[in-house]
Amino acid sequence: MDAGDIKALTFDVFGTVVDWRASIAREVRDMGRSKGIEADWDAFADEWRRLYQPSMAAVVEGRRPWAKLDILHRESLDMVLSIFGDAGLSDDEKEHLNRAWHRLDAWPDAVPGLTRLSRHYVLATLSNGNVAMMVNMAKRAGLPWDAILGAEPARHYKADTECYLITADYLGLEPSTILMVAAHNGDLKRAAKLGFRTAFVPRPTEHGSGQSTNLGPEQDYDIVAQDFIDLAAKLGC
Amino acid sequence: MDAGDIKALTFDVFGTVVDWRASIAREVRDMGRSKGIEADWDAFADEWRRLYQPSMAAVVEGRRPWAKLDILHRESLDMVLSIFGDAGLSDDEKEHLNRAWHRLDAWPDAVPGLTRLSRHYVLATLSNGNVAMMVNMAKRAGLPWDAILGAEPARHYKADTECYLITADYLGLEPSTILMVAAHNGDLKRAAKLGFRTAFVPRPTEHGSGQSTNLGPEQDYDIVAQDFIDLAAKLGC
Repeated sequence: MDAGDIKALTFDVFGTVVDWRASIAREVRDMGRSKGIEADWDAFADEWRRLYQPSMAAVVEGRRPWAKLDILHRESLDMVLSIFGDAGLSDDEKEHLNRAWHRLDAWPDAVPGLTRLSRHYVLATLSNGNVAMMVNMAKRAGLPWDAILGAEPARHYKADTECYLITADYLGLEPSTILMVAAHNGDLKRAAKLGFRTAFVPRPTEHGSGQSTNLGPEQDYDIVAQDFIDLAAKLGC
Repeated sequence: MDAGDIKALTFDVFGTVVDWRASIAREVRDMGRSKGIEADWDAFADEWRRLYQPSMAAVVEGRRPWAKLDILHRESLDMVLSIFGDAGLSDDEKEHLNRAWHRLDAWPDAVPGLTRLSRHYVLATLSNGNVAMMVNMAKRAGLPWDAILGAEPARHYKADTECYLITADYLGLEPSTILMVAAHNGDLKRAAKLGFRTAFVPRPTEHGSGQSTNLGPEQDYDIVAQDFIDLAAKLGC
């Protein structure tokens, strides 16, 4: 790949840029502590996240109209609380907990890597997270995005092709000049089919120490990088 | 106004953040010099900009489907060139000239003011400029936006109310917690009617030294500031 052709980098966010599992577990653990209850908070985070794909599938398959991820997360949270017990949480407390997804911590290499990349490339999110979630997360974590794109501005969740192609159109760029960065093979395979360049950055503890998926690249991507600092180096930044 | 209620600032861009007239005149002057032609380049910039409102009106009034501002600008440019002479410009040269709107210079106070404001507030564009234009302009000028919103993600140009309200929805905020910043009374009057807070920042040379409009506030806004540094100070940043 000639890095000189690349004008912008688009990023998957959950798992690729931020450690959603540890961050959500931290938030629910804090909530549990304040309420004096104990539970397997990693399992709580996993269960909440397990409902993510099914909740979007209803939109992707046209069984419900567009709904932003904050809304889907809240519905999923109510289901998880019905399993784990809602500990008498008020509606405000549930809403605060739902916005834990706005307060995810970046992987340690994310900010320094993105900061280097930002000097040479337009950096945009191509995430299923809604705009407010991505903006608040970036503000808190210091992620230097040039644009918040992806599902909400495209009104299509990944894996819809529209999510990728409308993002490219917003950037005013051909997919061949955009490098899609993700820790997930499925995301990159779909982007590659649509003409995007691809960079795989493994996040082997996204799902905890026993992770068995997405440990390595499953096809030939343009770049495979250890982390975002390595990605910046490989792009000559 | 209690500044503590404000969570985000949304900005008109052309005229308010960037000096479009001097920037466009600079670009067409450079082009003219390279082609060995002389003309009144300020008048060229004014004429190009004069076609801006009529070009959007066709979309706003439903006489044509959504078209991003890059496309409207290009159509207007062709009209202006038909008046001023196209100097044998190639299509690539015309396209480069059209993208002069991606290369507008910020007013001198804009970057230092926005940088101070950015430490305390979410900053978003609420402009008729399309996303690529706003992203490229920000990257070149160093404007620290947290989100590029406004017409294209809302699929409605100002003065449609949807442009303002969909922007607030993207931010996940009530209009009463958003401060709309503009150098134009019309923009602020519309935002105020929709429940936004308002800040007027005069740009008395936006249209050159003989400017006769928008020299001062035409109604009671929450804030009237001299420039963005004064705005930051008035908001306690």
